[in-house]
Amino acid sequence: MRYVRFRDAAGNVRRGEWTGTAGEEILAREHYGGRLTFGDETFDASEVDVLPPCEPSKIVCIGRNYADHAAERNAEVPDRPMLFLKPPNTVAAHDERITLPAGKERVEHEAELAVVIADRCRNVDAENAMDVVAGFTCLNDISNRDDQDREQNWVRGKAFDQAAPMGPVVAKPERVPEDAHVRLRVNGELRQDGTRDQFIFSIPELVEEITRYMTLVPGDVISTGTPAGVGPLADGDTVEVDVEGVGTLRNEIHAP
Amino acid sequence: MRYVRFRDAAGNVRRGEWTGTAGEEILAREHYGGRLTFGDETFDASEVDVLPPCEPSKIVCIGRNYADHAAERNAEVPDRPMLFLKPPNTVAAHDERITLPAGKERVEHEAELAVVIADRCRNVDAENAMDVVAGFTCLNDISNRDDQDREQNWVRGKAFDQAAPMGPVVAKPERVPEDAHVRLRVNGELRQDGTRDQFIFSIPELVEEITRYMTLVPGDVISTGTPAGVGPLADGDTVEVDVEGVGTLRNEIHAP
Repeated sequence: MRYVRFRDAAGNVRRGEWTGTAGEEILAREHYGGRLTFGDETFDASEVDVLPPCEPSKIVCIGRNYADHAAERNAEVPDRPMLFLKPPNTVAAHDERITLPAGKERVEHEAELAVVIADRCRNVDAENAMDVVAGFTCLNDISNRDDQDREQNWVRGKAFDQAAPMGPVVAKPERVPEDAHVRLRVNGELRQDGTRDQFIFSIPELVEEITRYMTLVPGDVISTGTPAGVGPLADGDTVEVDVEGVGTLRNEIHAP
Repeated sequence: MRYVRFRDAAGNVRRGEWTGTAGEEILAREHYGGRLTFGDETFDASEVDVLPPCEPSKIVCIGRNYADHAAERNAEVPDRPMLFLKPPNTVAAHDERITLPAGKERVEHEAELAVVIADRCRNVDAENAMDVVAGFTCLNDISNRDDQDREQNWVRGKAFDQAAPMGPVVAKPERVPEDAHVRLRVNGELRQDGTRDQFIFSIPELVEEITRYMTLVPGDVISTGTPAGVGPLADGDTVEVDVEGVGTLRNEIHAP
């Protein structure tokens, strides 16, 4: 089952179940093969705006959770999860045009599998972690390297507006294989391709570690890190993140 | 004028103007000399719970904004504001008992003047910055040095639950002198005492720099850094932050 949040033609924000018939290829609104259902109503997918699938109070991101990406950034594999934060101003929707921060030389894409939290929780053991997970979505951890590489905390580097496009849907965990591919394409060209079984820290381990320190609330997100292949985004690029079992998050890039 | 958010005896969350007659010495609920007014109703301050004065979607904190504190942490004074984030789970109220993260050796207090944002804003020039400011409050940037000193981004170190007690009120900017003292006491003993005119980056400069990257929304907070004198908190301590013109934020510490 896959859930979607959307705005209908009358402007109401609604939630529904994605019942598209086009399989995994949810490439963009205009390509949707299916329809959205909401209670007894059915919506034609081409007539709604897909919204971010949840409204996180915080996104807890994981750095260096794939060994190949740590290597390409000349960084060591950490002995415990490396954490950083993206606040709510970073959230952007599927199909939303992303305006990069002005005047930066290197702004890069990072394809990630993101975990959406279902329940308020603290001190969750790994063995019970999946009980607090609503499902998985796609996230692009857009990163401004100009600033990231010269600041202690990655705020200018990672927390600027629209730095976390998410969506298009939240897929129940059972839809997403243990070795699900996490891929990213720029203008149709494959740039990143990792699999969930390459994670250094598993999703249950991440939930346990984070909730030792922080209460998570419904809609909060844990983004699980990116595989090798990060690279630049430029004005006019179309960037797509797809997580096997979820679908494809697509955004156009505007670089002022 | 000073504003307060509180829960009345019937459990309703309300906002009001603080009309206490005890001057600056708002030491704790049971010491309140005055009363709270809300519309036509007046509340006895001893019969309400003071809540955090706003509900930030993010707290943007400034590191090393006083040269004497940078020196005591063996850190250089930065050439632009050093930013880090505290998410909503860190917010705690005046008089709320603070439970420190378990098993840590060094958890320290940091007294700060915090700026509460009134309006949604982006790309605000310094000269117009005070137009988006609702007022000032007290904030204790509680810091877990065990983890802060070994992580790139200060998440375990600064973003744990209750790591940002705030309050008790929001004072309009004109109540707070340009050279207002920012003080902290532990069990009545003065530990920190700085003044606002020692800031390396002024409040308008901070608003300009942050809003180049991030949209701020009403209730968001910018915490302006701490003066020298940071030190440990222990089980049973009473810690008080006072900002001249605002009042005193008081919390008891529980170390499990």
